[in-house]
Amino acid sequence: MSKDVTGPDLTGQQDLPARVEEFIGQELRDVDEIYFAELASANPYVTDVLGHVTRFRGKRLRPMLLLLSASATGRIHHSHKTLAAVVEMIHSATLVHDDVLDEAETRRHVATVNARWNNETSVLFGDYLFTHAFHLASTLETTYACRTIGRATNIICEGELSQIRERGNFDLGEEKYLQIINGKTAELCAVCCLLGAHYAGGDAQTVESLESYGRNLGIAFQIADDLLDILGSESETGKSLGSDFAKQKLTLPLIRLVEHADEPDAARIRELLSGADAKSWSQLLAFLETSDAVEYTRAKAQHYASSACQCLAGIPNSPGKRMLSEIAEFATRRTF
Amino acid sequence: MSKDVTGPDLTGQQDLPARVEEFIGQELRDVDEIYFAELASANPYVTDVLGHVTRFRGKRLRPMLLLLSASATGRIHHSHKTLAAVVEMIHSATLVHDDVLDEAETRRHVATVNARWNNETSVLFGDYLFTHAFHLASTLETTYACRTIGRATNIICEGELSQIRERGNFDLGEEKYLQIINGKTAELCAVCCLLGAHYAGGDAQTVESLESYGRNLGIAFQIADDLLDILGSESETGKSLGSDFAKQKLTLPLIRLVEHADEPDAARIRELLSGADAKSWSQLLAFLETSDAVEYTRAKAQHYASSACQCLAGIPNSPGKRMLSEIAEFATRRTF
Repeated sequence: MSKDVTGPDLTGQQDLPARVEEFIGQELRDVDEIYFAELASANPYVTDVLGHVTRFRGKRLRPMLLLLSASATGRIHHSHKTLAAVVEMIHSATLVHDDVLDEAETRRHVATVNARWNNETSVLFGDYLFTHAFHLASTLETTYACRTIGRATNIICEGELSQIRERGNFDLGEEKYLQIINGKTAELCAVCCLLGAHYAGGDAQTVESLESYGRNLGIAFQIADDLLDILGSESETGKSLGSDFAKQKLTLPLIRLVEHADEPDAARIRELLSGADAKSWSQLLAFLETSDAVEYTRAKAQHYASSACQCLAGIPNSPGKRMLSEIAEFATRRTF
Repeated sequence: MSKDVTGPDLTGQQDLPARVEEFIGQELRDVDEIYFAELASANPYVTDVLGHVTRFRGKRLRPMLLLLSASATGRIHHSHKTLAAVVEMIHSATLVHDDVLDEAETRRHVATVNARWNNETSVLFGDYLFTHAFHLASTLETTYACRTIGRATNIICEGELSQIRERGNFDLGEEKYLQIINGKTAELCAVCCLLGAHYAGGDAQTVESLESYGRNLGIAFQIADDLLDILGSESETGKSLGSDFAKQKLTLPLIRLVEHADEPDAARIRELLSGADAKSWSQLLAFLETSDAVEYTRAKAQHYASSACQCLAGIPNSPGKRMLSEIAEFATRRTF
């Protein structure tokens, strides 16, 4: 890993969002414009729901990955902005549908669509975001983007379906867990970077390196997110506490806990996992505190974040590349 | 309207499915093969849900419309079969998501996905069908199909969202109703015919005529379907009785009833509509019997079916064209 990427520069990493804003702020505003122009509707109900969904938009990580990958490879073109809007729509669609699945009441401190309106609106508005994403992708010259995004979304759906199937399986292994998060999270991050590099005219090696960067980053982000779901409180992360536990979705910290507990603790932990109530939760947290599970999970997230940075080794130094490295570092920072 | 289209030939119309099978049976089997190849998954859970959804597939009207429009315009190519699989996937996706919305327990006598598994599986499996549809469309040479299908699915989602918004509005007018069903049903039928004609090399006039045929047919079908929802019984149509009434979705027969009732009947009818229970339902049926609403609705469905046939007037006679005409006739036949 080259020094400029993970060296002392990162001490100033806290102001990363501000520097990204300074570097590609105008491009991100262009992306927003494309996003809202595509989703504009004469139907006031649609406008109303869209306005609401916009309030819980996050840091626009995926558009950033796409634009920074473009910049690290060559120049940012109009096609990149279009595609950045496409991936943001797909991400929004999965969030809206996830909230139906999780029966979540808040996301980033804002009521979810299903809590504010109803499940029907969530399902249909998620569909609306999906179909507009595909429509917008089809405005590019060739079918390359449609095909690439179509394949990625197929994999995302399979990842989500696998996750549901494994719910309540308290012997879920680490390998299966990684396979699930690779589908449901890492695939889209990988495709963002791939599209950024491809549409900037990157050679096969560059495109592949950036795709791998995105995949490793996505895995690191999801592991960190799953850890936060356990460690965080509602006020800190804007999500309900232990929501994965409540839905009996086993994530890495608890997988590690189950796998490395001796009997009779392991049996007791499985029992607590199936309890899915507040009392079981506090007892599980006590087990977690005396185990290496949290430390192990942090190390795993850091491992994938480092792998992400290593994927950038062959890419020439540039502000875009540096910011991609910093994002990888940032991925796990939240869990400390 | 030319004689061969709606003339005495139609007396043998009962065996239409058999004749369609004889005419394009092999092509429909090819479509099935493409459909299942695209949706094949290494995930046994996905295979399981897909196998189940397949059991409530209907008459494959949309693939038929696409192939027959191709045949009426020129020749059926491989791209038509691919697109026929695409439109069937989109239709399947909307059915799976509709069943979440309707909380339906059976469809065509088979348990719905949400009744057999859960809402989460329905949402994700519907997404899986949508994304595979777009992926499959992107395997064609140009972005034309992606763009056309993307635009159509945007309109379908808006139609469905409008419908939800108008639920419980007992003063929904006929115009708004037609606008909703034009989106949620007629758009996809129109696009099937448009794609069939376009990919068979039809000129602008032919493509437009067939698109209009599909739109009118779709409206006729939906009006007939809405009438059946009121008149039919669960055993006859495979749907729950009066499900639109139960969800406070106003359809044409009840719109007509409300609009043409004098006070105090009109007030009483609105009250019964808001009741949404069995007792209100039987009293509403009594009001319907003494009104012209059922007759009016049938006439409307027939009007759109006739318009569909008229759209074919400029298309040269062929077996494909004749079958399209017969399908239009068949659209309203079910309600007698």
